Amino acid sequence: MDPIYLDYNATTPIDPAVVEAMLPYLREYYGNPSSSHALGKTAHDAVERARRQVADLLHARPDEIVFTGGGSEASNLALKGVAFARPGGAHIVASSVEHPATTQPCEFLKRLGCRVTVVPVDGRGCVDPDAVGRAIAKGAALVSIMHSNNEVGTLQPIKEIAALTRAKGVLLHTDAAQSTGKLPLDVDELGVDLLTVAGHKLYAPKGVGVLYVRRGGRGGVTPPLLEPLIHGAGHEGGRRAGTENVPYIVGLGTACEIARRSLPAASERLRQLRERLWDRLREGLGDRISLNGHPEKRLPNTLNVNFAGCVGSELLAKTPEVAASTGSACHEGRVALSPVLAAMGVPPALGRGALRLTVGRFTTEDEIDRAAAALVRSAE
Amino acid sequence: MDPIYLDYNATTPIDPAVVEAMLPYLREYYGNPSSSHALGKTAHDAVERARRQVADLLHARPDEIVFTGGGSEASNLALKGVAFARPGGAHIVASSVEHPATTQPCEFLKRLGCRVTVVPVDGRGCVDPDAVGRAIAKGAALVSIMHSNNEVGTLQPIKEIAALTRAKGVLLHTDAAQSTGKLPLDVDELGVDLLTVAGHKLYAPKGVGVLYVRRGGRGGVTPPLLEPLIHGAGHEGGRRAGTENVPYIVGLGTACEIARRSLPAASERLRQLRERLWDRLREGLGDRISLNGHPEKRLPNTLNVNFAGCVGSELLAKTPEVAASTGSACHEGRVALSPVLAAMGVPPALGRGALRLTVGRFTTEDEIDRAAAALVRSAE
Repeated sequence: MDPIYLDYNATTPIDPAVVEAMLPYLREYYGNPSSSHALGKTAHDAVERARRQVADLLHARPDEIVFTGGGSEASNLALKGVAFARPGGAHIVASSVEHPATTQPCEFLKRLGCRVTVVPVDGRGCVDPDAVGRAIAKGAALVSIMHSNNEVGTLQPIKEIAALTRAKGVLLHTDAAQSTGKLPLDVDELGVDLLTVAGHKLYAPKGVGVLYVRRGGRGGVTPPLLEPLIHGAGHEGGRRAGTENVPYIVGLGTACEIARRSLPAASERLRQLRERLWDRLREGLGDRISLNGHPEKRLPNTLNVNFAGCVGSELLAKTPEVAASTGSACHEGRVALSPVLAAMGVPPALGRGALRLTVGRFTTEDEIDRAAAALVRSAE
Repeated sequence: MDPIYLDYNATTPIDPAVVEAMLPYLREYYGNPSSSHALGKTAHDAVERARRQVADLLHARPDEIVFTGGGSEASNLALKGVAFARPGGAHIVASSVEHPATTQPCEFLKRLGCRVTVVPVDGRGCVDPDAVGRAIAKGAALVSIMHSNNEVGTLQPIKEIAALTRAKGVLLHTDAAQSTGKLPLDVDELGVDLLTVAGHKLYAPKGVGVLYVRRGGRGGVTPPLLEPLIHGAGHEGGRRAGTENVPYIVGLGTACEIARRSLPAASERLRQLRERLWDRLREGLGDRISLNGHPEKRLPNTLNVNFAGCVGSELLAKTPEVAASTGSACHEGRVALSPVLAAMGVPPALGRGALRLTVGRFTTEDEIDRAAAALVRSAE
């Protein structure tokens, strides 16, 4: 029997409707969108249709959507794109719980002479907007704060931060890889200038993503000057070179269309499943479990739980019925406390027993009940 | 009726066997290769199997294969990866007929203070190894010369160039996007340190590629120090961050396996089809057509022909039976002579009538005959 998949923050299955939408572009419509003949036009039109679908989900304009090879590439483009467009180097402000696709470009840019300020989080994983305000008081080019954390799900006060960055003329990037499709997103309401989307967190395939890049004339904000990360021919309005991945772009467009139609009901469904899981675990283990992350301001699907007296990896090894993560799936295999839990000040003795349990579109109540029972048995 | 596809250098259809190999990874095996549970391991194993298949085609080692989001990303990684790994900046030598995925990173690096020397080509599109030798005489970090040209198909004397770069301790990158699968390739025989592969020129999908990166201990060459282009989690041995595109990587592995088995017979078949096309056109138009590129040292599938007195785009518009290119499909839509033809010194009045006719795995003799007849009718 297949394990119960509670690792939707690591990656999602591709929605069957997304696979269906992609198949004609894998089989028949193989043209290069840059070609001027009919096969090329078919491919080009499919890409532009998908661009509108993505834009609609984010309440953006199609020409603000840059397709990339994934979320990591999108965040790299945001950070390096802004930094390299400023010949003097840039001051970048980021939080202490960002994804490696943000922290590692920051480290690289630091080695090239950029200044990077890291803003701490509190015990629930929240950034204090005032701390961001202080960090940018003396000038910055870019603030990069994730919309929601991949490990504990904590939502950051992006709107409040945007009010501060806008007042200072500082650009704001948010990594919304985990939020897209789980929560309604509106780039204007958020006030962000750059936003990362990762296809495979959203029931589209691995290997496709989007960087939202604000255009001028909207909200009175100067559009970000962006140096491409991948230089070459003039694809994506000169912002990202490389022949367009037509099938996956079509898939991502379809995934965004599905997400747009299913929100906000889908959020509520995820929340109920997650709360059911929490309730079942509490019934079985009582105070032996504790929550990491913000109790309310959190992704609706994410439950990061410390199992007191356990080691996460051992607990999972004892529970083959459940597929889940001990840390971020991107850097598993080590037993040290994850950088996110460490930054939140989770005591190592407690965090060693942390599991990230994340539900999704195909999770059922029955799965929740069986997974909780199995985890309770193993933890006891 | 579908047009006759003579645009295989722009992009190839995905081989049906490649689609079949990918489907289980689009539908069932959706795990993140970084996850430690069973679904993750299945995905991880599939990626490693594909890595061996790619390595086998290139006569490389699996740990020398870095999967990327396409050929453009691979070439960007090669050029910027070498340049950024040298804190003092780098001197790069490239030819005048490189793909934009090479020329544009060079332009970017120039703006950052790197030195770039462009080596010219002769009237047939060939680089003179001695010119490369002179360019690197006073030191260089990297030579980047394509294996074959995407527009005219001319093959460059990579082995001869490698002898010179090795003697000087200079790294050699070659963009083999157009050669892979059309000609046998052996990274040791070529003597290259870095080599670009693009999936969609090889009957795999758009949006996946490879950078071959030589490891130490082979051929007595210092392995290239490479700064990642996409920083983040430690995927691909720390050389390229981002969750692996498992379905496309599986597809590229299968495409390489098919290519390896079909070579060198596939080359000969392509050459015969291309010569048949040339013969039919000559029968119909005689001296009104002329060849661009090297008469022998050329990709077996590529025929770049000047139709005297014609404009390429008009000729194609008059011939809807045939899907082909007037220049590189990556930057169509403009009527100026392509940079490649210009660099070769093709007279503008002649080059305006140039068509790139490229055959492939699914081209038939009947298609060749019909396409030639249609083009002759239109040109007359």
